Amino acid sequence: MSLLSIPSPADWHVHLRQKPLVYQVAKHVRAGGFKTAYVMPNLVPPITTTEQALEYKGLLHSIDASVEYLMTLYLNPALTPEEIHKAHKAGIAGVKSYPRGVTTNSDGGVESYEIYYPVFEAMQEVDMVLNLHGEVPSNPDTNTCVLNAEETFLPHLHKLHAAFPRLRIVLEHATTLAAVNAVKACGPSVACTITAHHLALTVDDWAGQSFNFCKPVAKFPSDRQALRDVILEGNPKYFLGSDSAPHPLHRKSVSTPNVGCAAGVYTAPILLPLVAHLLESFGALDRLEGFVSTFGRNFYKKLASEGLEHNVTLRRVPEGTAGLIPEKYEEDGEALVPFWAGKPLSWELVPPA
Amino acid sequence: MSLLSIPSPADWHVHLRQKPLVYQVAKHVRAGGFKTAYVMPNLVPPITTTEQALEYKGLLHSIDASVEYLMTLYLNPALTPEEIHKAHKAGIAGVKSYPRGVTTNSDGGVESYEIYYPVFEAMQEVDMVLNLHGEVPSNPDTNTCVLNAEETFLPHLHKLHAAFPRLRIVLEHATTLAAVNAVKACGPSVACTITAHHLALTVDDWAGQSFNFCKPVAKFPSDRQALRDVILEGNPKYFLGSDSAPHPLHRKSVSTPNVGCAAGVYTAPILLPLVAHLLESFGALDRLEGFVSTFGRNFYKKLASEGLEHNVTLRRVPEGTAGLIPEKYEEDGEALVPFWAGKPLSWELVPPA
Repeated sequence: MSLLSIPSPADWHVHLRQKPLVYQVAKHVRAGGFKTAYVMPNLVPPITTTEQALEYKGLLHSIDASVEYLMTLYLNPALTPEEIHKAHKAGIAGVKSYPRGVTTNSDGGVESYEIYYPVFEAMQEVDMVLNLHGEVPSNPDTNTCVLNAEETFLPHLHKLHAAFPRLRIVLEHATTLAAVNAVKACGPSVACTITAHHLALTVDDWAGQSFNFCKPVAKFPSDRQALRDVILEGNPKYFLGSDSAPHPLHRKSVSTPNVGCAAGVYTAPILLPLVAHLLESFGALDRLEGFVSTFGRNFYKKLASEGLEHNVTLRRVPEGTAGLIPEKYEEDGEALVPFWAGKPLSWELVPPA
Repeated sequence: MSLLSIPSPADWHVHLRQKPLVYQVAKHVRAGGFKTAYVMPNLVPPITTTEQALEYKGLLHSIDASVEYLMTLYLNPALTPEEIHKAHKAGIAGVKSYPRGVTTNSDGGVESYEIYYPVFEAMQEVDMVLNLHGEVPSNPDTNTCVLNAEETFLPHLHKLHAAFPRLRIVLEHATTLAAVNAVKACGPSVACTITAHHLALTVDDWAGQSFNFCKPVAKFPSDRQALRDVILEGNPKYFLGSDSAPHPLHRKSVSTPNVGCAAGVYTAPILLPLVAHLLESFGALDRLEGFVSTFGRNFYKKLASEGLEHNVTLRRVPEGTAGLIPEKYEEDGEALVPFWAGKPLSWELVPPA
């Protein structure tokens, strides 16, 4: 097989950042083979209102009008049921919940969900999706750290699902066997995104190598295997959300003991070839269409027939030809280093005729 | 209490490196308050013979003759029982076992211990100490990674101890509750070193921060607590081995996605004040003498009365005065960044009158 045709792939979790980085980053959605992007709201300040979301969408549209941007709000105490109804009418697709202090620009995130129950009730009513960054903040007193932050969160998922059984919930960027099993244990209203990089990395890859450091951190080989296995199963609850999260080169580097690097791995500009390469590496190439297109579109009720048609063709990179991931992308003096920089991929996009 | 007198502290695990770094590093043993240093053999090439060890000892002596250097050999297939007898007669104190590929300059390390049984028999006979870097190499197929490399090694410790019950064995730089318990379960011929930095760090501290990355990696808060608890107990099987492991600044930094940083944390130049500071932070200051002096000397049968007397006085740093750990040490253009660079310590050495 040397050609693969993928109908309308969609990335259900992507960070497109704000000015000035957005001008470089937003264009990479198409570069990576996608025309549907579910856009995260963790800007500074975060996207908390319909107006902000629409303004941000306008900015993205002005950079690349060929992409369908599905917008989200940042869950916060000021969010009301009325705002949910307003957002829904404006076409906003979901609300993203961040745990306080865990990831990039999540200082305003949540610690307890009860205060949001009226908001979730409204979301359930209008069928808006709740996106969960499923980690609890580290706390030595409770033995919580980056390694068990996700597993420790899972009871919150079950509690939310029990309280709002019709609310569509996505557990984002699962990294553990425990998370995979938790989503399986839930009803059909709960799904799960998996990133490309978590199909490749384990803890050994980010130990001493900050460019592979992201949140949630990659964990044991057995956890990576659980992510691969659920894709091999063709389980439709699990689909691609890249969590592509660019940071400038200097924020991914570490040069002093007093400043840690930013958490995040940048996959958007190489996303579809990377996912094809990875799935093939563990024998799941025949699951590519479901994982990057059908499963997510079905869950989000955003079928390609709604004007989102965008067939993409991949071809196998002939042996001995280039096919290397660029060392970096650079625009206006800001360098972004992609995941697996300089490595070869087995697949590449066929440019549209 | 504003003065502390410590009789003859000893560091039972230290890397003093080779030319040219050794000229800077060896002097830091005294700077950190120590005159007894148990010296690791992982140079390039490794110290595998009595001659090499004595030559290395001579080099160290030429840099600072006031320190007692206790030398070790690097366990390797060329090591014979005859060489053990020779080494013992020459005053060499121990043999260090490295797992293949796990840590700095350990490419020639071991994978299986059976081939060394004649060597261990000879070591038991002459009462030479076996120092174990207790980690197995990572292997995704067996779900082994930096997080469970130590725990996975522990059956090897028990097997060796059962085969050579009189052989003195030190499990080096324990980082887990499992390792602490494994050493407790062994007889009095098995002891354990604990570093200063593993009393401070958890996985969260090296996630995205390469200067805190070392092997074995710091693990869960509960593992750190187990190390603290065994010191609080005053258990004489557990004593200080700093594993002070300097690397040039550029090797601790990360500036590209394709080169990981070197594993190791540099504590030698600040060691005794750092240990006092840390023990006080978890209420174990009254265990300082046992941890840094008595327990290790008793196990190694190197009592201070053997000409190793060296009383050191620490004083509490007055509030509002400097007392900061240097940002770096620099000599001949080679910068070394100490652990906790720029942070304040509660204790400092009183210079000898």
